[in-house]
Amino acid sequence: MQDRPSLSALSAPLAAALVADAAQLRIGIDRVAGATIIDGGIARPGGLEAGRRIAELCMGGLGRVTLQADTQSDRWPFQVAVHSTDPVLACLGSQYAGWSLTHKDEAGSFFALGSGPGRAMARKETLFDELGYSDSGDHAVLVLESGTVPPAPLVERIAADCGVAPERLTLVLTPTASLAGTVQIVARVLEVALHKVHALGFPLHDVVDGIGVAPLPPPGKGFVEAMGRTNDAILFGGTVHLLVDGPDDDAADLAKRLPSTESRDYGRPFAEVFAAVNKDFYAIDPLLFAPARAVVTALDSGRSFHGGHLASGMLDRSFAG
Amino acid sequence: MQDRPSLSALSAPLAAALVADAAQLRIGIDRVAGATIIDGGIARPGGLEAGRRIAELCMGGLGRVTLQADTQSDRWPFQVAVHSTDPVLACLGSQYAGWSLTHKDEAGSFFALGSGPGRAMARKETLFDELGYSDSGDHAVLVLESGTVPPAPLVERIAADCGVAPERLTLVLTPTASLAGTVQIVARVLEVALHKVHALGFPLHDVVDGIGVAPLPPPGKGFVEAMGRTNDAILFGGTVHLLVDGPDDDAADLAKRLPSTESRDYGRPFAEVFAAVNKDFYAIDPLLFAPARAVVTALDSGRSFHGGHLASGMLDRSFAG
Amino acid sequence: MQDRPSLSALSAPLAAALVADAAQLRIGIDRVAGATIIDGGIARPGGLEAGRRIAELCMGGLGRVTLQADTQSDRWPFQVAVHSTDPVLACLGSQYAGWSLTHKDEAGSFFALGSGPGRAMARKETLFDELGYSDSGDHAVLVLESGTVPPAPLVERIAADCGVAPERLTLVLTPTASLAGTVQIVARVLEVALHKVHALGFPLHDVVDGIGVAPLPPPGKGFVEAMGRTNDAILFGGTVHLLVDGPDDDAADLAKRLPSTESRDYGRPFAEVFAAVNKDFYAIDPLLFAPARAVVTALDSGRSFHGGHLASGMLDRSFAG
Repeated sequence: MQDRPSLSALSAPLAAALVADAAQLRIGIDRVAGATIIDGGIARPGGLEAGRRIAELCMGGLGRVTLQADTQSDRWPFQVAVHSTDPVLACLGSQYAGWSLTHKDEAGSFFALGSGPGRAMARKETLFDELGYSDSGDHAVLVLESGTVPPAPLVERIAADCGVAPERLTLVLTPTASLAGTVQIVARVLEVALHKVHALGFPLHDVVDGIGVAPLPPPGKGFVEAMGRTNDAILFGGTVHLLVDGPDDDAADLAKRLPSTESRDYGRPFAEVFAAVNKDFYAIDPLLFAPARAVVTALDSGRSFHGGHLASGMLDRSFAG
Repeated sequence: MQDRPSLSALSAPLAAALVADAAQLRIGIDRVAGATIIDGGIARPGGLEAGRRIAELCMGGLGRVTLQADTQSDRWPFQVAVHSTDPVLACLGSQYAGWSLTHKDEAGSFFALGSGPGRAMARKETLFDELGYSDSGDHAVLVLESGTVPPAPLVERIAADCGVAPERLTLVLTPTASLAGTVQIVARVLEVALHKVHALGFPLHDVVDGIGVAPLPPPGKGFVEAMGRTNDAILFGGTVHLLVDGPDDDAADLAKRLPSTESRDYGRPFAEVFAAVNKDFYAIDPLLFAPARAVVTALDSGRSFHGGHLASGMLDRSFAG
Repeated sequence: MQDRPSLSALSAPLAAALVADAAQLRIGIDRVAGATIIDGGIARPGGLEAGRRIAELCMGGLGRVTLQADTQSDRWPFQVAVHSTDPVLACLGSQYAGWSLTHKDEAGSFFALGSGPGRAMARKETLFDELGYSDSGDHAVLVLESGTVPPAPLVERIAADCGVAPERLTLVLTPTASLAGTVQIVARVLEVALHKVHALGFPLHDVVDGIGVAPLPPPGKGFVEAMGRTNDAILFGGTVHLLVDGPDDDAADLAKRLPSTESRDYGRPFAEVFAAVNKDFYAIDPLLFAPARAVVTALDSGRSFHGGHLASGMLDRSFAG
């Protein structure tokens, strides 16, 4: 690989713009241990547009997220579309929620998965070796799908892991059931696909480009229902088109295996799957997490392969609660 | 409510950009009594993109308006989608055409409804008490759905009402039958919904977010046909999704009552309705002015309610003239 | 016509932004004879977003190109939409590939069609007399649908023809089969329509506005297949809505004659048409190059006329290879 962009450098102005536009975006700006904490939907309402901008920030400034109409749907007439200048880097190097952030002390315990461009500065995940990417910079940004503010010692540790002073760290908090959370999670439709591409053993350096879309679900009540719906938006309503290098057989195999429809746990709303395993996330087939359908184009031959299908009835079941 | 954004401050750069881009947008820049008059389709052609940018300006810089394809429609394949960082403030505090601007002297009479961010500086409407919002600033912008230039004394009075010198006032003129007018009116699909929400007595502070879309009609010949089509685009083709606080029953009731389909005057193209009341606007059921269908999600419970329906046959009748 | 925008002035910052964002867009920046050569898909992968930005640059900064979802399509779920502040100037004055660039010497021969804002500075085409437009400026930009780098003497000649030093010339290269090439070619759906409008003898000054959309094809293998698919995206999947001045009869006639469906060569994938004439481009009916369907609104009467139709089966045949 040649020169790579610095996600830290690209995302810093987007984080600054969130702060500057906080009043109109109806998000909060707080300080913990010197770091900037952006409240995307805890004490402040946030909104769909806040979520859209947080999603683009979460992709390290490499993503373009848009809210689009889908007037053919009788019940859920809007959707979230996403593409990137560099999908593997934007989605797996930044947007993927791969950094486990935990803290426990006498005051209680905190857990969240960190996503966003700061991950590549901390490089706590082996994924970065495979991506062959590391970053450094003046400013670190992470997005946490969390409804509580991380404690000061954790904030300080995150800053240290990213190699910046706490004053140079921005943490964006978006609860799963918030409007901003809903948009920024569904905007992961392409990231979820690329993560499964990786899990299936397809070489990431052969993924040249991709674009995705999924319906905008109504936020669910509480964490489990909200998580269920955002997952179902992707699992039953998500579409991706990937453009890959390599042999046709591999592309065909990828199109066949990539969709959620191929998982043993496919077939009912995610909240039901989650309940059936007694909320043990790790008992769920990891291959369930994928868009409902995929087009995979093999660039070497120009042939395209199709897999999976949309399931609007399942969306109705999930979104209606 | 906490800190609120200044619509004046947010819209000033958008107004300046319209002036800077006047040549490419094919709009005119004139002066009346020292104020900047932007001709969005009187002596100059303007266009769809000029209308899109005027619509975003009219929302006080809080709106995002996009032209999107709807290739499933056999006859009207493009649509206008709109959302905002803060829909109630953007739509009712700015975009709503609620300021009645009249002037009469020996030279004749002028009438237009003023919309845009300058309204919150003049605060001539009781609506602002309910919104709990007022604004001041260096620069005032109003959009007038008008085919004639307002006379100098009126321009001076508008500036005085906004608390700025005429040199700090920008008036954007978009005739109903112009291309820019068509886009900026149809971009009111969400505003029209929120205005009816208010008329139905649903508390505005419970409306957390919203997004809307309506088909792009061909501009009609003359004011009445043009007004008819832009109204019909919303009345028969408009869709909104609102996300609200409060009890399920209220959200369900809102979804049922919000659509145009619930009005006693629903059922024929707006120009026919208008003719049937001898062009007496105030004889028309005010509840007719609403999108064709609505999804209302109660955020407290996560439940969604649906009302109304699209009527493509009525669109064809209206748009075909 | 009044004041016209300078395409050179409007496009210079877009060209500079492509260079600044080269790493994230995965495009290359080289120098030939002092000119900046942007590799949009030869040695570097480029991508869909690079193509989107190149398409906007190619419209002289007057265009807005978006990637949108079309989830109703079973097989090709994304599309490219385009509109402009000033479509005739953006599409025919800039985006049209009308400047024939050839060079032959002992090292070999080079041929490409130049598009983009630099055309109006060189004015090598009689089309500019009809458009009544000429431009000059500090910086010239051309887009070449080419997989090879133009030789230094040609680069120097292009710069001289544009009236700038080579150091002030930017050439963007996008091979037909590249991702960026695919997007920037399909983004010509409106330009192709306007070019046929002109070929049919409809007066360009009567075309007030327009908007278009076409499906995003998978890039084909090699030049012929790739050219076939990008053409077919427009010929079988493209839609435009034009808004015109002048009599109804002329608008009705335009809607009837404009679509590709009216050409004697309509009916099979473009690559087959091309093969059938032994790759002699000039043996193909020039009226084939048009979107599949058109809506033409006569602004003077408000009436709209419809012609042509989408042919999804032909798209499947073309895109599947």
